[in-house]
Amino acid sequence: MASTTNKGFAGRYLPILKWLPNYNREFLVGDITAGIVVAIMLVPQSMAYASLAGLPAQVGLYASILPLVVYAFLGSSRVLAVGPVAMVSLLTLSGIGELAPSGTAEFIALALLLALLAGLIQLAMGLFRLGFLVNYLSHPVLVGFTSAAAIVIGFSQVKHILGVTISRTERPYEIFGVLYEALPAVHSTTLIIGIVAIAVLLYFKRYLAGQLMSLGVEQKTAAPIAKAGPLVVVLLGTLLVWGFALNGESGVSVVGNIPMGFPEIGIPGIEFANLTALLPIALIISLVGFTESISIATTLASKKRQKVDANQELIALGAANVAASFSGGYPVTGGLSRSAVNDAAGANTAVASIITAVLIVLTVLFLTPLFYFLPSAVLGAIVIVAVAGLFDFRSMIHIWKYDRFDALALFATFFGVLAFSIEAGIGIGAATALLLYLYRTSKPHVAVVGRVGDTEHFRNVLRHEVRTCPETHAVRIDESLYFANSRELENCLLGAAAENRDLKSIVLICSAVNSIDASALETLERVDEELSSAGVTLYLAEVKGPVTDRLREIGFLDKFGEDRIFLSTHLAFEKLGCKKHD
Amino acid sequence: MASTTNKGFAGRYLPILKWLPNYNREFLVGDITAGIVVAIMLVPQSMAYASLAGLPAQVGLYASILPLVVYAFLGSSRVLAVGPVAMVSLLTLSGIGELAPSGTAEFIALALLLALLAGLIQLAMGLFRLGFLVNYLSHPVLVGFTSAAAIVIGFSQVKHILGVTISRTERPYEIFGVLYEALPAVHSTTLIIGIVAIAVLLYFKRYLAGQLMSLGVEQKTAAPIAKAGPLVVVLLGTLLVWGFALNGESGVSVVGNIPMGFPEIGIPGIEFANLTALLPIALIISLVGFTESISIATTLASKKRQKVDANQELIALGAANVAASFSGGYPVTGGLSRSAVNDAAGANTAVASIITAVLIVLTVLFLTPLFYFLPSAVLGAIVIVAVAGLFDFRSMIHIWKYDRFDALALFATFFGVLAFSIEAGIGIGAATALLLYLYRTSKPHVAVVGRVGDTEHFRNVLRHEVRTCPETHAVRIDESLYFANSRELENCLLGAAAENRDLKSIVLICSAVNSIDASALETLERVDEELSSAGVTLYLAEVKGPVTDRLREIGFLDKFGEDRIFLSTHLAFEKLGCKKHD
Repeated sequence: MASTTNKGFAGRYLPILKWLPNYNREFLVGDITAGIVVAIMLVPQSMAYASLAGLPAQVGLYASILPLVVYAFLGSSRVLAVGPVAMVSLLTLSGIGELAPSGTAEFIALALLLALLAGLIQLAMGLFRLGFLVNYLSHPVLVGFTSAAAIVIGFSQVKHILGVTISRTERPYEIFGVLYEALPAVHSTTLIIGIVAIAVLLYFKRYLAGQLMSLGVEQKTAAPIAKAGPLVVVLLGTLLVWGFALNGESGVSVVGNIPMGFPEIGIPGIEFANLTALLPIALIISLVGFTESISIATTLASKKRQKVDANQELIALGAANVAASFSGGYPVTGGLSRSAVNDAAGANTAVASIITAVLIVLTVLFLTPLFYFLPSAVLGAIVIVAVAGLFDFRSMIHIWKYDRFDALALFATFFGVLAFSIEAGIGIGAATALLLYLYRTSKPHVAVVGRVGDTEHFRNVLRHEVRTCPETHAVRIDESLYFANSRELENCLLGAAAENRDLKSIVLICSAVNSIDASALETLERVDEELSSAGVTLYLAEVKGPVTDRLREIGFLDKFGEDRIFLSTHLAFEKLGCKKHD
Repeated sequence: MASTTNKGFAGRYLPILKWLPNYNREFLVGDITAGIVVAIMLVPQSMAYASLAGLPAQVGLYASILPLVVYAFLGSSRVLAVGPVAMVSLLTLSGIGELAPSGTAEFIALALLLALLAGLIQLAMGLFRLGFLVNYLSHPVLVGFTSAAAIVIGFSQVKHILGVTISRTERPYEIFGVLYEALPAVHSTTLIIGIVAIAVLLYFKRYLAGQLMSLGVEQKTAAPIAKAGPLVVVLLGTLLVWGFALNGESGVSVVGNIPMGFPEIGIPGIEFANLTALLPIALIISLVGFTESISIATTLASKKRQKVDANQELIALGAANVAASFSGGYPVTGGLSRSAVNDAAGANTAVASIITAVLIVLTVLFLTPLFYFLPSAVLGAIVIVAVAGLFDFRSMIHIWKYDRFDALALFATFFGVLAFSIEAGIGIGAATALLLYLYRTSKPHVAVVGRVGDTEHFRNVLRHEVRTCPETHAVRIDESLYFANSRELENCLLGAAAENRDLKSIVLICSAVNSIDASALETLERVDEELSSAGVTLYLAEVKGPVTDRLREIGFLDKFGEDRIFLSTHLAFEKLGCKKHD
C-alpha cells in the first residue's frame, strides 16, 4: 500500500500524498476516537518519560506535538503512534547525564541537540538506504538489552516512589546499593501514594478490560478504557495532593510549575565539543529507536496486509526527531503500547496522530497549571508499570533452551548493560553475536555420504546404512564457502586423502553452498593442485546456478574443466566407476 | 601421519616420538644435504632480517639456533624451516620502534620480551585449541597485508642501498617523502654495491637454475645451487669492502663487530608497562606468523599426503618463540622460501633442521669476524629481492574481477597498512571482511519458484518458464536463517501476502537453510502468526535433518504442526491443490 512505487520524488518520500486524496468520511470516526484515546495516554506518559530522562515534564509534552504531525506526513505506517518512549528516554539520560546536571538549562539544550543528531543520523540512513543495518541487532541482543534496560529504568524510578534523593551512579548496577542506603530516609506519604498508584495501574492493565467485558461491554470499548489507567492515577494523585495540601508540610514531591503556552521554535545551539560527545549515544538512539519502531509498524501493518518501508520509516522518524529538536522536545520514536491502542481504537490513517497532536497543543496551552500538584511518585509509578512487562524472562529461557550461543550473546548484552552502560552492553552483545555466528559457520557440518541401497540418494555414512567405494569419496559440506571456513574445507579434503591411501577421487557435493568467496575459491584452486600432486582428482557435484555463473565468469570452470563438474552425485558416481550394481 | 592419535600426553604433544624411533639411515643423506643448504641461505638471511627489524646482525643468528631445535621436537610438519622471516621482522620493528631507539640495548631487550609474549600467546592458543581463530584473516586481507608490507619492507631497505641515514617516520607512507628528501645525499659507492648485489640476486633467483639445467645439471642439484645467491653476494660484498678498504675513507657502511660465541641463556627482564605496550603487536605477530607458517606446512605436507595439526603447530611455534626469547633471539616463524628449499633439497625429517641449527652454532662460534666487512647494502639487497615477490598484483586483479566485496576488504587492508600501521591495516581489513560477509548474507538470494512443466522440479519464475498457482506461492531462500537476514525473511513473506490479495498459502522452501538461529526462529513464529491473522497459511518444505531435529527439540514442530511441513515442494503443491495436471 504505502510502499515506494514510481510516483516521482514527492510520491516516494511523502506517503501522505497517496492516502490523503482518498480520505473519506468513514475514516473520520475511527481516527477521532483513536486520536483522543492516544492523547489521554500520551499526556501522563510523556510527562513521566520526560522525568525519567531527567527533563522537566513540559519537554515530554513538546515532544508529543510537532513530531507526530511530521510523522503523519512522512511515515509509511498508518497507525504508528510516535512520541517519547521509556527506552529512548533512558538512553537520553544516560547520554546527557555525564555532560550536565539533570534538569538544568544546559541539560535541556543537550537533549534538543541529541534529538537533532539522532534525527539527522536516521535521515541519512534512510536516504542512503541503510535500513538493513538494524538487522545486526539480533533478537537475543534485543531481549538482553530490553530486559536489562527495564531493570535500570524501573529502579531509576524507585527513588520517586520512596520519596528520596539519591546521587548519580557511575555504573547502572550501583543503583541497588544507593537505593539500599537511602532506605532509612523513605518518605512514607510518598511511598503510600506510589504504591497505590502502582496498584491502580496494574489493576487497569491486568484486570479491568476482562471485568468490563464480562459485564457485557464490547472489547472495542473496554480496551481503550483500560488504557486510561495513567490518566486516572494522574487525576487521583493530583486531587489528593491538592485537597490535603500534601506538597506543603507533608513534603510530597510534586511536578510543580509547568510553563503554559507553545514551546519556542528554533534551531538548537550547537557546540562542536558537545556534538562529538553526543555522537555515540545519538547513534544508539537512532538504531534502537528505529528497531523498536519498525518492529511495531511491521506487526501492525501485516495484520491488514499492508507494508512498511524500512528506509521511508527511517526518513520519517529522522524528520520527527529533527522536528522535536526544533520545538523544545527530545528524542522520540514509535511506542508499542500507544500504537497498539491507536490501532485497537480504530485509527484508519495518520489523521488520528494529527488529532492527538492538536489535543496535546490544547493541553500545553490551557491545562498545564492543573499538573502543578501532580506527585512525582505517580509519574514514577507510570514508568515502573510500563517497563515491568519489558523484562522478558520467557524469551530468555526459550533462547537458552534453543541455542547456547544465542543465549551467550543475550547474557553478554544483559550483564554488559547492567555492569557498564547501555551503549557498552549493546556493543558487547552485538560483537558477541557476530563472532559466535562466524565461529559457527567456520565449523560447518561436513558429511561423508554414500549411496542408499540402489537409489540415487546419497546420505551421511554416520547416520544411514549406505554403500561407499574405496577409491571414491563423496563429501557434502553444509555451509557457504567463505574465508572463515575455507581452512576447514582444506583440512577436510586433504584429510580424506591423507587417511585413505587408496583414494583416487573426491566428489565435493555443493548442494548447500550458496556462495563461494575469493578466499574459498583460492583454497579450492590450491587444494585441487595439492590433491592432484598427491594423485587424487577433485570433482564437484550439485553446484548451484548462481555459483556456477560466478565460477564460469572468473574462468575457474575453464581451468578446472567442466567435465569435472556433475549435475548430481549419482552421475558423478556412475562416471567414476562406483556404480549402483557391483 | 603426524596427527594427534591416542598415544597419551607425550605422543600427543611430542610428534618427534612418533618418527624418531623409525628413523633409518636412508633418511640421513637427504636430511644432511637439506640441513646444509638451508644453513647457507639462513646465515645471510637471518642477519639481513635482523637488520630489517632494527636489531644487530647476531640477534638474527641467535634466533636461528634454539628455535629450530625446539620446533624439531614439537612440530607436526617434517620439513618446515623455522627462523627469522621478513614479515615478522617488520612487525617487530613496527612494535618496538615506538618504545626505544633501534639497535640500543633496550630495543634488544624489548625484542626478547616480544618473542616471549608472542610465544606464550601461541602456546595458549594451541593448548586451548584456538587455531581456528586464524581463519578470520581472509585471503583478500592477507593479500592486501602482504603486498602492503612488501612495499613497506622494501622501501625501508632502500636507505641501505642509497647509503643514507633517514629519520624514523610516524606513518608508513611517509617513507617515500623521507627517501626523496635524502636523494641528494646518496653515497655512490654504496649505491653501486647495492645495485650489483640486487642484480646478482635476481640472476640467481630467476635464471640460474634454468641455465644450469639446460647445461645438463639435474634439477635436484640446480635448485639448491640457485638458492645460494645470498651467500654469494655476502662473500663478494665482504671481499670487495675488505680488499679495497671501502669502509674507511670511502665510507661504505658495514655490519661491523659481531660478538663471537653462543648467546647468553636466560629469562628476559619483564616490566609490566612494556608488557601492555607490546601486547597488541605480540598478538598480531602470533597470528600472522602462525598463518604464514601453517599455510606453508599444509602445502608441503599435502604433497606427501601428510597432515599437519593446526593446534600442535601453534604449540610448536609458541615454544620456538619462547626458546628464541631465552637465547637472545627475536620472534620467528616458518619461512616460505627456506621451507621450500628444505623440502626440495631432500629433507625427510626434522633432523635436517637440527643439522641447520648445528651449522649456525658453528657460524656463531667461529665465523662472525668474517662478517665485519659485510656491507649493509648487501643485507638490504637480500631483503629487497626476498620481499619483491610478495607484492601480489595478480591476486589483486583476480580478486577484483571475482568479487568487489572481497576486493574492498583487500584494498582497505592495503591502504590501511600504508596509511596507518600494520596492526591498524589488519584490523581494518578483518573488520571490513566480516561486515561485508554479514552484509552479503543479510541480503539472501530469494526466488519465487514454480513447477517446470509436468515434472516434480521447481525453479525460479524469473529464470525459467514455470507454472504457478494464484493461491499458493512457493518461496525459496538461499541462505541459512539468522539474525542478519531474519528481517529480510519477514519482508519477503509478508510482502508476498500484501502484494497478492488472493494468496492463501505460502510454502517456504528450506533446501538451502543450513541452520536457524534464535532470532530467525522468533521471526518465523511471529510471521506465522501475522500471516495467519491475514488469512494466509505458512508451510515449510525440504527442511534439513539437523534443522528439523532442533525445531522438534524446542517444541516448534508441535506448535507449528508437523502436517504443515512437507518433505518436498512437489508434495506440498499436491496437497495444497496446486496439482500437476489442471
